Amino acid sequence: MSSRDRSDLEVLYRVSLAVHRVVRDAATSPHRGDVVAMGADGTPTEELDRLAEAAVLKALGAEGVDWNLVSEEAGVVPRGGIDSLVVDPIDGTMNALRNLPFSTVSLALGRENLAGIELGLVRDLVRGTTWWAERGRGAFVDGRPIRTRPWNPRGEVLFVNLGHRATERAVRLAEKSRRVRSLGCASFEMLMVAQGSADAYYFENAEAHRNLRSTDIAAAYRILSEAGGGVTDCRGASLDRFPLTVEGRTSVFAWGDSKCLEAARDGGYL
Amino acid sequence: MSSRDRSDLEVLYRVSLAVHRVVRDAATSPHRGDVVAMGADGTPTEELDRLAEAAVLKALGAEGVDWNLVSEEAGVVPRGGIDSLVVDPIDGTMNALRNLPFSTVSLALGRENLAGIELGLVRDLVRGTTWWAERGRGAFVDGRPIRTRPWNPRGEVLFVNLGHRATERAVRLAEKSRRVRSLGCASFEMLMVAQGSADAYYFENAEAHRNLRSTDIAAAYRILSEAGGGVTDCRGASLDRFPLTVEGRTSVFAWGDSKCLEAARDGGYL
Repeated sequence: MSSRDRSDLEVLYRVSLAVHRVVRDAATSPHRGDVVAMGADGTPTEELDRLAEAAVLKALGAEGVDWNLVSEEAGVVPRGGIDSLVVDPIDGTMNALRNLPFSTVSLALGRENLAGIELGLVRDLVRGTTWWAERGRGAFVDGRPIRTRPWNPRGEVLFVNLGHRATERAVRLAEKSRRVRSLGCASFEMLMVAQGSADAYYFENAEAHRNLRSTDIAAAYRILSEAGGGVTDCRGASLDRFPLTVEGRTSVFAWGDSKCLEAARDGGYL
Repeated sequence: MSSRDRSDLEVLYRVSLAVHRVVRDAATSPHRGDVVAMGADGTPTEELDRLAEAAVLKALGAEGVDWNLVSEEAGVVPRGGIDSLVVDPIDGTMNALRNLPFSTVSLALGRENLAGIELGLVRDLVRGTTWWAERGRGAFVDGRPIRTRPWNPRGEVLFVNLGHRATERAVRLAEKSRRVRSLGCASFEMLMVAQGSADAYYFENAEAHRNLRSTDIAAAYRILSEAGGGVTDCRGASLDRFPLTVEGRTSVFAWGDSKCLEAARDGGYL
């Protein structure tokens, strides 16, 4: 690893820590009530996202890096560089507002499209657990190497996105699988596949504009790939050329073992 | 609170800590590979449960209490007392073996049936977060009072047990609801309702002998009741008389607001 790579990874780590601090402070602040109240009635609740995104921008300024920003709230923010930092300041905002302990900050550095992501880092905003990977150098959780698990249908654990926007076949998958989990936090669920805790993650909404964005998946995409797995959309098509914008949306099938990908194809889920 | 009550609660807390230590040690021991391998192929994996249960029995001996034990592996162990400790040493064993961060130890003290539970304590075996309640004295998480949330369909979050054993209407509920989560750890999911993070928890298997036991739900039942919610089976019938044995099984609908119970009835889910 060049010193430049190492330095970039350390910047991502410090940015993730800055976001974690802001979210933790918000959770214990006297203003928490306002933020939570906004979430309670189901209206858009970007206040916490905005706080977290501001922390990212501030941290990037302090680090003196020229990376452009691609982030949910701010959109694309040119900052003079060639590389872009693709950010979901809080993946699982509703969970965070509700004290459901599944939310992350997701940071990916690269250019153009998912295949162009060089570094990915995701931090669990509850436990502080941090996953990262850089292209060609393996994937890690808190410094320990991780690998996906061999697929075994008898021991299968699948993460599936459900609810009234999910497609019929997403529901059918949840009905047929041996063990189903669902967290409402795409990056976390993809990382459960990356670390060998689960076999796959399936996200397909009937309303295509409610599918996932590059900001949700870019970091986990790199980490899962380095851990031995892969990511396609729910037609089984490669996402390598999926652009690093905030407009594009895609369904996601993330798998740890290509045998699981084949089984999903055979079952008509892709 | 009498000194006797306080003392009982402290015993439960220390027992939960003993289990937490054993599970943590198992996760970092050189033998972990064996335990995890047992889980990987989908065969029954009671090894970790047995370790945890042994820790409960040892802790009870050290505390000098005469409570009988009702526990998944050991069954009913008479120990000379009038009260029974109803224990799930690890709720979410598969999760624990897979490093999926949702597992608990669940401890309830009482007699005869769920209505006879006086004290309940549940500890998150990953984060150490601890919920408890005693009858008539409110419910707490790490010392802070908790309450269920008012039901609002637009902001609804439901925990639903899914997979190939779930009933058709459980799947239908997951298909119709606004936001669905699923963890494979009943006590944890019921406590998300108790602390106001979610609106309800629904568990109904087509194979009745795969439904939940008193050991899974006794502690969370008391905590949720004290937090302002309630628990029925999935026909809407009271579980107050559900006996504290390891043989009995029941479906579970746990709700935070009685309006949510009414909506579930109206929707044909109960």
